[in-house]
Amino acid sequence: MSRGSERLGITEDEHYRERAQRKKELIDRRIARATIERGVVVVNTGNGKGKSSSGFGMLARSLGHGLHCGVVQFIKGSFSTGEEAFFRRFDDLVDYHVMGEGYTWETQDRERDIAAASAAWAVARGMLENPDLDFVLLDELNIALTKGYVVLDDVLAALAARPERQHVVITGRGAPDALVEAADTVTEMRVVKHAFKAGIKAQKGIEL
Amino acid sequence: MSRGSERLGITEDEHYRERAQRKKELIDRRIARATIERGVVVVNTGNGKGKSSSGFGMLARSLGHGLHCGVVQFIKGSFSTGEEAFFRRFDDLVDYHVMGEGYTWETQDRERDIAAASAAWAVARGMLENPDLDFVLLDELNIALTKGYVVLDDVLAALAARPERQHVVITGRGAPDALVEAADTVTEMRVVKHAFKAGIKAQKGIEL
Repeated sequence: MSRGSERLGITEDEHYRERAQRKKELIDRRIARATIERGVVVVNTGNGKGKSSSGFGMLARSLGHGLHCGVVQFIKGSFSTGEEAFFRRFDDLVDYHVMGEGYTWETQDRERDIAAASAAWAVARGMLENPDLDFVLLDELNIALTKGYVVLDDVLAALAARPERQHVVITGRGAPDALVEAADTVTEMRVVKHAFKAGIKAQKGIEL
Repeated sequence: MSRGSERLGITEDEHYRERAQRKKELIDRRIARATIERGVVVVNTGNGKGKSSSGFGMLARSLGHGLHCGVVQFIKGSFSTGEEAFFRRFDDLVDYHVMGEGYTWETQDRERDIAAASAAWAVARGMLENPDLDFVLLDELNIALTKGYVVLDDVLAALAARPERQHVVITGRGAPDALVEAADTVTEMRVVKHAFKAGIKAQKGIEL
């Protein structure tokens, strides 16, 4: 049975190849079915880390492709001055606005928070009407929505009426149900553990 | 009771300020307790979107701060050529390696996958020993770990022995328990919904 033994000798690789082949066929079928070409709305929500940084990662992707991008930060400091410096190397492609004040517990001034959110939304709405923008990042918009500083129906209407190929990424905890419903891709970032709770300061590059 | 009515008139703002003040005190106490300054290990896992893009967002943050960064992509194509072009604008700060082959169902060649993962790990290990690197992104390392192409104990040992101030971000679904245990911050990206399932092609800037 030497032939059988030889076959046994390569069984693992063969099984590997067969499994990989089946998986490839499955995925190829799915890719073949995914034929729609249009802008998508992506929502990153939940209490975990990575909502904003994933949005800025997609911004990096988009800039890498030479897409024209707009960014509005609804909370100042959610993505730090570090990134502003970073994206300044892409002045040719990105329209970058840090509009909001700090988090509400920092400002402690409701009127000022509302005024800042309204001004940020005015800029954001202009971007959602601009056919020259391929990618729009509305960082921490969900916070302004849950606080009621920006009207959800206005956002839903602007998303529905935006240029067909424009991508929009919206971040922040507590995404409203109707926004989740309207979005194409929604991820919940769930905390498994966080360094801050173990007494580690916020670190440059990671949180700041 | 006109004085009372006046007080009622500003009640909402006052309550807002009081709540914000209490929250600020709580958060300030937490910040005061978080005094440890050291490099952290961040793990992004789960089946949802945003694991790699969040890692690249943190890379953007780090570059914005002028930190010296290393990147190893264990799966070619997990973050596309678009980003490579993007990060080429930061040749002065980033050491960027796309080492892996495609996903296993694309290569269908176990030996080649193992060889590629081993070569990628050799570069990654060198980065974890390099005190000049402030930030290291090991994109899709978890895939290589769960497949057994890279030895978990080697990774844990290299993380434990790395320069004290070096940050490491590891992405990929299926993070091994011992890696979660060793990490400082772990997020599970959970799928709520995905455009691909609705027949929408992978889009430049979003997935590609």
